[in-house]
Amino acid sequence: MKITATEIYKSVEMIRQKAPVVHNITNYVAMNNTANALLALGASPVMAHAQEEVEEMVNISSALVINIGTLSKPWIYSMLKALSQARKNNIPIVLDPVGAGATTYRTQTSRELISRHPPTIIRGNASEIMALSDDKSKTKGVDSAHASDTAISTAQKLSETCKCVVCVSGQTDYIVQSKQIMKVKNGHPLMTKVTGLGCTASALCGAFAAVEKSSFVATVKAMAVMGIAGEMAAAQALGPGSLQTHFLDCLYGLSETDISQRLKIED
Amino acid sequence: MKITATEIYKSVEMIRQKAPVVHNITNYVAMNNTANALLALGASPVMAHAQEEVEEMVNISSALVINIGTLSKPWIYSMLKALSQARKNNIPIVLDPVGAGATTYRTQTSRELISRHPPTIIRGNASEIMALSDDKSKTKGVDSAHASDTAISTAQKLSETCKCVVCVSGQTDYIVQSKQIMKVKNGHPLMTKVTGLGCTASALCGAFAAVEKSSFVATVKAMAVMGIAGEMAAAQALGPGSLQTHFLDCLYGLSETDISQRLKIED
Amino acid sequence: MKITATEIYKSVEMIRQKAPVVHNITNYVAMNNTANALLALGASPVMAHAQEEVEEMVNISSALVINIGTLSKPWIYSMLKALSQARKNNIPIVLDPVGAGATTYRTQTSRELISRHPPTIIRGNASEIMALSDDKSKTKGVDSAHASDTAISTAQKLSETCKCVVCVSGQTDYIVQSKQIMKVKNGHPLMTKVTGLGCTASALCGAFAAVEKSSFVATVKAMAVMGIAGEMAAAQALGPGSLQTHFLDCLYGLSETDISQRLKIED
Repeated sequence: MKITATEIYKSVEMIRQKAPVVHNITNYVAMNNTANALLALGASPVMAHAQEEVEEMVNISSALVINIGTLSKPWIYSMLKALSQARKNNIPIVLDPVGAGATTYRTQTSRELISRHPPTIIRGNASEIMALSDDKSKTKGVDSAHASDTAISTAQKLSETCKCVVCVSGQTDYIVQSKQIMKVKNGHPLMTKVTGLGCTASALCGAFAAVEKSSFVATVKAMAVMGIAGEMAAAQALGPGSLQTHFLDCLYGLSETDISQRLKIED
Repeated sequence: MKITATEIYKSVEMIRQKAPVVHNITNYVAMNNTANALLALGASPVMAHAQEEVEEMVNISSALVINIGTLSKPWIYSMLKALSQARKNNIPIVLDPVGAGATTYRTQTSRELISRHPPTIIRGNASEIMALSDDKSKTKGVDSAHASDTAISTAQKLSETCKCVVCVSGQTDYIVQSKQIMKVKNGHPLMTKVTGLGCTASALCGAFAAVEKSSFVATVKAMAVMGIAGEMAAAQALGPGSLQTHFLDCLYGLSETDISQRLKIED
Repeated sequence: MKITATEIYKSVEMIRQKAPVVHNITNYVAMNNTANALLALGASPVMAHAQEEVEEMVNISSALVINIGTLSKPWIYSMLKALSQARKNNIPIVLDPVGAGATTYRTQTSRELISRHPPTIIRGNASEIMALSDDKSKTKGVDSAHASDTAISTAQKLSETCKCVVCVSGQTDYIVQSKQIMKVKNGHPLMTKVTGLGCTASALCGAFAAVEKSSFVATVKAMAVMGIAGEMAAAQALGPGSLQTHFLDCLYGLSETDISQRLKIED
């Protein structure tokens, strides 16, 4: 399988044209960045978590992104309602199990969300993905304690069990669907020093899945765009503060040439 | 009626001198930006939503800004308490009905807040303003599905019913009080790619209303300053990331010359 | 007592090497900045407030930072649980009593937290520190109504009562432990125009306390690093927007020379 810069850019253009509404139930830390990244990409973000309105919000949305970064009981209840409605409406669902493995609450909540309403795409770091099926995996707060390749076999099993795409992000991102694997080698180490860029990646997966038939292809494209915009930003940045600023600017101005010059995808 | 650059700058200076406390019950996405914009303008922002303290916080505040961007039941309860106290204290109240029209919950909550404690100023995009009186109006998530001029007659009726100023923001901002209308044509399209700038505009309305007798004049001034700082920021920005940064810098350094060179107000 | 630039830089290096997990239960406004500042410094921030998980999160953390900036009942409950666990685990605790003195709820909550689970470090502006023991002290929203030196004697008493370090921040920061006082004169007035930099200072205290035996020394070092990075950022900034961006960049790149050239500590 081959995904070209031209194909990736076509999806970017489609997002810019359609401005799909992406409904996020996400954490307090990353909400602002996530909304800004979706806007910069061309999507129309909406953040809503009240149980009274999540189903209706899902009804006007083209994708749902669930992120457990700052979890609490009423939010889980709303996540379940939104997930159920998204499944009914057959729109793509992205789950970001932030900090799974760090606490039992996060691990169990992630597992419950997945088993009750299997998502279309799960994106997390290696520790988080491993925690979804292995009780001994530990996460260092919300940072990974493992390199991304250590989670590949877990990702494959998880993908088969819940019939979804699993993305293990890290220095290399592994996008896994059953036996199929693609690697995205874009990105920059400085990105790990900016909070919420993982959450942003998950949100971008939602935007691409909203305009792309294959959720596997959508995830690869999203992670490539994420990494490329990050690389371009890092090339100009003096540190993590300016990286965040440049990242949004680069995402907004992303051209086909930017993608073709930098794209590093491998089978 | 004529509002000059000199008059607008006088209000900016008054805000810088008095540093009025502006109490915000606002959404999670825009809280940080809103606080920063109020600080950059010279006001003293405070964010507080606990039912145990909102009345007391209102008592030390010169304006109250209510924004329903990320709504939930306990917050509505606190909004009602704060609104009631603000009415008792006779301080200006700004309401931003974010996403009214997108869900029944947002539409009904906005209407309930307005009918129980009429605000001094309502600021929203065309879809949101129309949703306050028209059950068929739809909002695309939190983005407007209509140009701002389509909501003028609704804004006029709304203004008369609740005896308040209504601002329909968009490419042109319409500030409406009964039969009186002023247009602010400042601003830049890139501002729509930054999350929370609408919320920021509402917060600035609160700061101007805190130092200005006429809430109509305060709203015109706030929207002009918002648009001018946005234009200045856009002139230097490479995208939405740097726009947000420059916007705060421009707001902070805003001079009378900046205002007089750019001001575009029409009767 | 003398704290040198070399010693401060050694702690910075230790934070960068160990990347201590710093658990924050903090306010919505400053969450993003705080997480970014901790990452830029080299620590591993985690934000978690659910009562179901705070104890477990404390168990994997090297410091706990409690900030009451946007307070509510369920969060206080979680704060108490986290505090109790942090005391059991004997990890350093930083308390930031944001807005104490502005409302009874904030004042009483701060006092209750302190009396039930005495923190290791309390950091606040003069009004906030005074409000912790004086019922007549008033806070202007979340901004201080007093110069920092007016709170020194209160800080000393407070330090003795709860056997902790008290830091009164302002133009000069006073770090107080019983009879011992050190002054940090770094920083820049423009920092007061950026929301959440006080909260950031408290978070940095947590990071330094995680790697430093003496919590007094940790606080002095944190406030010096905070002020120095702020000065460096202000030297390049055009306003508060770019100050925040540069601040994170400067914190990330901070060298021993940066510290030695600017350090202003006095006994």
